[in-house]
Amino acid sequence: MEQAPPEFDLIAQLWAPLTRGAPGAYGLKDDVAYLPSSPLGHVVTCDQVIEGTHFLSSDPLNSVAKRLVRRNLSDLLAKGCKPIGAFLTLAWPKSRPYAQVADFAEGLGQDLSDLCGACPLLGGDTSSTTGPLVASLTLIGSSLLVSGAPILRSGARSGDLVFLTGIIGDSYLGLQVRLGQMYGQGLAGAVAFAMAPAPPPLAVAHVIATFAQASIDISDGLLADAGHVAEASHLAMHLHLEQVPLSAEATAFMTRSHNPVESLLALVTGGDDYQALMCVAPQKAAAFVSALAAIGVRVTQIGVCQEGQGIVLTHCGSSVDLPARTGWQFSGA
Amino acid sequence: MEQAPPEFDLIAQLWAPLTRGAPGAYGLKDDVAYLPSSPLGHVVTCDQVIEGTHFLSSDPLNSVAKRLVRRNLSDLLAKGCKPIGAFLTLAWPKSRPYAQVADFAEGLGQDLSDLCGACPLLGGDTSSTTGPLVASLTLIGSSLLVSGAPILRSGARSGDLVFLTGIIGDSYLGLQVRLGQMYGQGLAGAVAFAMAPAPPPLAVAHVIATFAQASIDISDGLLADAGHVAEASHLAMHLHLEQVPLSAEATAFMTRSHNPVESLLALVTGGDDYQALMCVAPQKAAAFVSALAAIGVRVTQIGVCQEGQGIVLTHCGSSVDLPARTGWQFSGA
Repeated sequence: MEQAPPEFDLIAQLWAPLTRGAPGAYGLKDDVAYLPSSPLGHVVTCDQVIEGTHFLSSDPLNSVAKRLVRRNLSDLLAKGCKPIGAFLTLAWPKSRPYAQVADFAEGLGQDLSDLCGACPLLGGDTSSTTGPLVASLTLIGSSLLVSGAPILRSGARSGDLVFLTGIIGDSYLGLQVRLGQMYGQGLAGAVAFAMAPAPPPLAVAHVIATFAQASIDISDGLLADAGHVAEASHLAMHLHLEQVPLSAEATAFMTRSHNPVESLLALVTGGDDYQALMCVAPQKAAAFVSALAAIGVRVTQIGVCQEGQGIVLTHCGSSVDLPARTGWQFSGA
Repeated sequence: MEQAPPEFDLIAQLWAPLTRGAPGAYGLKDDVAYLPSSPLGHVVTCDQVIEGTHFLSSDPLNSVAKRLVRRNLSDLLAKGCKPIGAFLTLAWPKSRPYAQVADFAEGLGQDLSDLCGACPLLGGDTSSTTGPLVASLTLIGSSLLVSGAPILRSGARSGDLVFLTGIIGDSYLGLQVRLGQMYGQGLAGAVAFAMAPAPPPLAVAHVIATFAQASIDISDGLLADAGHVAEASHLAMHLHLEQVPLSAEATAFMTRSHNPVESLLALVTGGDDYQALMCVAPQKAAAFVSALAAIGVRVTQIGVCQEGQGIVLTHCGSSVDLPARTGWQFSGA
């Protein structure tokens, strides 16, 4: 077993640079961090990645760290918030070479810098474990709404149009290939994407805060997450499967499918897309689409909210039964 | 394998009650939590407990949850802050019965209620793992200083008196007995204490905010943590080992020891005491001690700060060499 570097060397060399000199981090040399007073309050999200559950043991840890940041970032973005500080706890396997801590820190730093608007790391803890790697991130944000509050799941109204940023399904396809459950030809992009799926750029937060009535990030699966919005808003959400935006690779995959509806249902229940679903009042829709186009973000209308409840699915005008499993859920089994 | 309860049942039954109706938690039914605007800013700490590293697999999970809360709470208290919101991520072993999630939630709820001043749980995530249990808590507090900032390690001045709340060493003694490395007779209290060491009561935060120049919680070991304060404050801290406050059980243990200094050194490097070390200007010391007495908190002067650097140890007037290992440090080995 190689010698562990002392804890304080790890902090100084790997983590302290990620504070970007934020005064409230105290160089990671104290026991707490200080978040400056915000007239708008703070919005907080907290999520983890677990080896064997959320990533494969063979995944490069640079990507694992990015997946962790993006799982949390997509929550904030969809809520119209931008990150202002991060806290990390890392349960580090005794069997992993220490060089990989640097890989993890590098990926964390890149995403906090490039995707999170130079968000500082403000604190955390690294300890050792006899088991798989577990990393938990708390991401603190500030809302871009005047009220300081986040956009919630519960604000959709009948008549609202349902929009989606980016594309859906590449994460699912890439994972299936990586697990050996799908033939990988023509899916190289999806395989790479699945390691650390990219959320929309930070600038979407302002557009969402300006225009969305309700929103959610797509992490469990499009149908499951859309269902959360429908339930919280006491509405039916009518979704048109053929309008769900796909990558070129996923589109080609669909054209090869013997059962396109079944294949589409796999993509919209796969999860880990990290895109934002937004409900927008029809009279604001044109301005919303323009604002996203102005920052180079692809957005697609996939449905509409109406009186009723739950998800109502169609494909090219034909009714489609909602699958029993609409997305990923925690189960210990 | 028993059937896992659905994720949303777990949230509704076990976690949502712990929000205590805090509006910013949205009943744990949304993706983020909202911390109301604070004119004083927020202070944040983030720490974890790992099965096999911080607790034994046989420990009741009620105690494990309390240990997790207290590891974080002691950081906030020592910094003159009171908790206002908590976020939990839980990597739950597939091999553990689900009934134990309820045990964990009960312990978490009891401590958030009784020790943390009815602090709400505001968010988090539960996922499954093939490995040991890992639980990470982010505890957000508000400082009781007028500035809103925490008391730091770096504020001690030459002449400051060094005080300690509570007692030191029972956690170490209890763990040694539990690991079978020490004979347990006469240490039943320490064994119970070691499962979830009790920090001082919430009311100390106000006294610390009012009187302390510098402070730290004793988690790695008294000598290690005192050393952090000495280093950050660019001072020498002279500590008198015979003045370190011990429980009746630890005192009896010391009287049975063939080498009392060596035994004392084991206690002051053992860690997990969760007490506060505070540096107080001599002219404020009497008022500080009175304020703690008024809230029923035992406090003991164990030394003084002087020009110089590092920890200077004595026992009954005789110099004692600082041990090579002054406390617990992360090492992957």
